[in-house]
Amino acid sequence: MSASSSSHPGATFGPIDIPSTQIFHETPTTFALVNLKPVVPGHVLVCPRRVARKFTDLSDDEIGDLWRTVAAVQRVMERVYDTTSSTLAIQDGPLAGQSVPHVHVHVLPRREGDFARNDDVYDELEKWRALDDDRAPRTAEEMKSEADALRVMF
Amino acid sequence: MSASSSSHPGATFGPIDIPSTQIFHETPTTFALVNLKPVVPGHVLVCPRRVARKFTDLSDDEIGDLWRTVAAVQRVMERVYDTTSSTLAIQDGPLAGQSVPHVHVHVLPRREGDFARNDDVYDELEKWRALDDDRAPRTAEEMKSEADALRVMF
Repeated sequence: MSASSSSHPGATFGPIDIPSTQIFHETPTTFALVNLKPVVPGHVLVCPRRVARKFTDLSDDEIGDLWRTVAAVQRVMERVYDTTSSTLAIQDGPLAGQSVPHVHVHVLPRREGDFARNDDVYDELEKWRALDDDRAPRTAEEMKSEADALRVMF
Repeated sequence: MSASSSSHPGATFGPIDIPSTQIFHETPTTFALVNLKPVVPGHVLVCPRRVARKFTDLSDDEIGDLWRTVAAVQRVMERVYDTTSSTLAIQDGPLAGQSVPHVHVHVLPRREGDFARNDDVYDELEKWRALDDDRAPRTAEEMKSEADALRVMF
């Protein structure tokens, strides 16, 4: 095992193993990852490291760390994508459209004209699936490149 | 000034004065209010007490308190509305559909069949406006009744 893989062991996102190459920021209880199928450029996810299904399953400390990390990630993504607006959302539970049974905050930098109607972002978010859907996933190399570029901004 | 109005002085939500009768839970830096125009039953808002436009304007302490309060509110609303799913969202900035220039977390308990398509909730959320739109607002009495019923659950 190299020093690099030892220091970034990856993470678990519901049933999915996330390699360290896709993680661009982490704290002791939170990690941020690039997206196999982003619905806008810069659409990333922030998750508690512990596999918890519901937001209300998190401890007070996990909640604080999760959302402070969201703010840190949001600041970087708004700088990278030259905007001051973001959609932040948790689909918490199956009836809210949750597809992966692990709390995840969607962070989407929003830009003028990114959707014909502003709220079409949510249609796309609703169709977002980490695993099986019809949209072509990005390659591992594309995701690694994005994560590498973001990692140095924290 | 009565003891009641003294202990619950209301709050400021962007340009809007929120009377204490519409606030059902509060902490030193956060308050939760019922909604003039809920898009589903139990659609409530949780806000930082300080008038901050962007989520990234909040301090670490405000962020932690805001989202711990969201979790507490979510637990109560899911119990009241007999569900285990909620949509949690911040439209952070004008390009994300923010209508009131004050951070607010939308908490929407979700129930089977509440919308023909699950993601129609977001169309409604997008049309949500605290002030001027075409939907009929609820009466002060209706809002007070809801807030009174919720307040005792914390």
